[in-house]
Amino acid sequence: MSLPEDVIQGSRLAISRLLTQVENNTPEGRQVLDFLFPYTGKAHLIGVTGPPGSGKSSLVNQLAKEYRQSGGAGGRTRQVGILAVDPSSPFSGGAILGDRVRMRDLAGDPGVFIRSMASRGALGGLSASTSAAAQVLDAAGFEIILIETVGAGQAEVDIARLAHTTLVIEAPGLGDEIQAIKAGILEIADIIVLNKSDQAGADAAERALRSMLELAHPLPHVFDSHHGTTVIQQVKETAGWITPIHRTIATEGKGISELIQWIAHHAKYLHDSTEWLRREHARWQATLDELLRESLVARWRSSVPEERYREIVQRMVARSISPWRAVDLLTDKKDA
Amino acid sequence: MSLPEDVIQGSRLAISRLLTQVENNTPEGRQVLDFLFPYTGKAHLIGVTGPPGSGKSSLVNQLAKEYRQSGGAGGRTRQVGILAVDPSSPFSGGAILGDRVRMRDLAGDPGVFIRSMASRGALGGLSASTSAAAQVLDAAGFEIILIETVGAGQAEVDIARLAHTTLVIEAPGLGDEIQAIKAGILEIADIIVLNKSDQAGADAAERALRSMLELAHPLPHVFDSHHGTTVIQQVKETAGWITPIHRTIATEGKGISELIQWIAHHAKYLHDSTEWLRREHARWQATLDELLRESLVARWRSSVPEERYREIVQRMVARSISPWRAVDLLTDKKDA
Repeated sequence: MSLPEDVIQGSRLAISRLLTQVENNTPEGRQVLDFLFPYTGKAHLIGVTGPPGSGKSSLVNQLAKEYRQSGGAGGRTRQVGILAVDPSSPFSGGAILGDRVRMRDLAGDPGVFIRSMASRGALGGLSASTSAAAQVLDAAGFEIILIETVGAGQAEVDIARLAHTTLVIEAPGLGDEIQAIKAGILEIADIIVLNKSDQAGADAAERALRSMLELAHPLPHVFDSHHGTTVIQQVKETAGWITPIHRTIATEGKGISELIQWIAHHAKYLHDSTEWLRREHARWQATLDELLRESLVARWRSSVPEERYREIVQRMVARSISPWRAVDLLTDKKDA
Repeated sequence: MSLPEDVIQGSRLAISRLLTQVENNTPEGRQVLDFLFPYTGKAHLIGVTGPPGSGKSSLVNQLAKEYRQSGGAGGRTRQVGILAVDPSSPFSGGAILGDRVRMRDLAGDPGVFIRSMASRGALGGLSASTSAAAQVLDAAGFEIILIETVGAGQAEVDIARLAHTTLVIEAPGLGDEIQAIKAGILEIADIIVLNKSDQAGADAAERALRSMLELAHPLPHVFDSHHGTTVIQQVKETAGWITPIHRTIATEGKGISELIQWIAHHAKYLHDSTEWLRREHARWQATLDELLRESLVARWRSSVPEERYREIVQRMVARSISPWRAVDLLTDKKDA
């Protein structure tokens, strides 16, 4: 059989090979993805983000186990893909470590597929390769895809936008500075999970989260495609969905099956409203924009001699031409 | 006088106005920046990054105060610009809060200029606008520019690349998950600052940092401009500079003047070696690439009717064409 057919059949070896090609952005990988694309669209993509120390990895493991054992709300077990994305690690390493810890818990279950994604030094390319990896798992029949991001910065917010449902994980006592971060990521949360909820300060943390949620002004989702860059205003339409705060203790498996019910509720809400379609639109538009950027730059690069480019940079360093003038020289008037 | 002249004279009002134009990416702002560009190149850009809870803001405040009072190593007081960058806050707010706390400490000193930068929803645009803001302060005569980033993700690493000298701030007891983050950001550190060094676990933290530093393999700096995206391999040439670990207690002002000496040592090293020039090259190349991307996408956008674009996205959502096919349709063969 061919690689795409093997992936559709769920061959782990084929999936692994394709994911490597996807990460390395090979022409063959793109071709296979192209072929597989019509087979995608069945998976529920669940983003899991939150500050360091909130216990995201444990929670993701517990969710995977529960989906495999009880099948969650529907009673039907489903295959679970886990993409562990680490944007803070341009040199990789961190995510791989977390992976080994996971292997102990979930190893040997053929219904679970785990992959670490590091940014490999490519600015802005990580959300494209995560999107592509999710397509591979989707085509391979993984109906639940958990996309976990390490950290809580802009890159994580971008990646969360890939998901249909976004869980933001918090925990008591993560310090003051984290409060500032929360303000940004709370607004992308469909479900807020207060993990480690047996620890001191849990009630205070829940109150703080609740008042921050109330402060977060609901705005309609705007996707300004004329802006040159992708606008992130993935703000909740609170009319239809009130973001719940759900307590868990992931290390003891507490609150996990209820969390899966919340996720199922959210999926139902997405389908019953126009929200699922709207998110699909936003997701593919973002993916398209990123690929377009990449394609336009690559095409331009091949049209400008490397020497010319280096000379222009040299003149910028000498402060003899400004960056904007350099862009003009390199695009408008190549013979200037 | 005109706006650019007022900026060069150091008028705070003019600087503020120009920074707002820069953030909003107005044509007038670009024009003024273009004019000011030959006046830049005198400032020492110092990036300050590190995980939440490490006390970055206090440290930046103390550094600013010390630079103003004793002038640091050279004995000469210098004007200090502070850019507080918050990539995790697409909706802004967090950085502004931190600003108010700062105002109490540094308010009234005309030799200090503080500006918060939020990402304003623009994917990838924050490092460009931070770079532009640094140019404004540089042209206005601020010889020390502290670029502080909130959080510790990819966006922070990108912004740290703007600086000549990068400080990575750590503190004892920030939890296990943060260790994974450290692995990535330690490799961009020129000076590691162990802040809150009077707290329990400081010795253990220093030992951990030291062994992580040893693990970080030194690689030559590679800037692959043919890659389509900007490659981040700003790895230390440890041959010339051994990254020190320096202890501080920012809240008590301890270790600050010694830290300023380390920063001065590093500046001297950069100038004595070819490293300063190499970093300037990398910095302007990154800036140029970002502006080029923006310009190419904007130009392409204006050439494709909005309806056509929406139709293509619609077909992707329906899984009838893949993202790569969509790019082909929108670029190669517009009439396909």
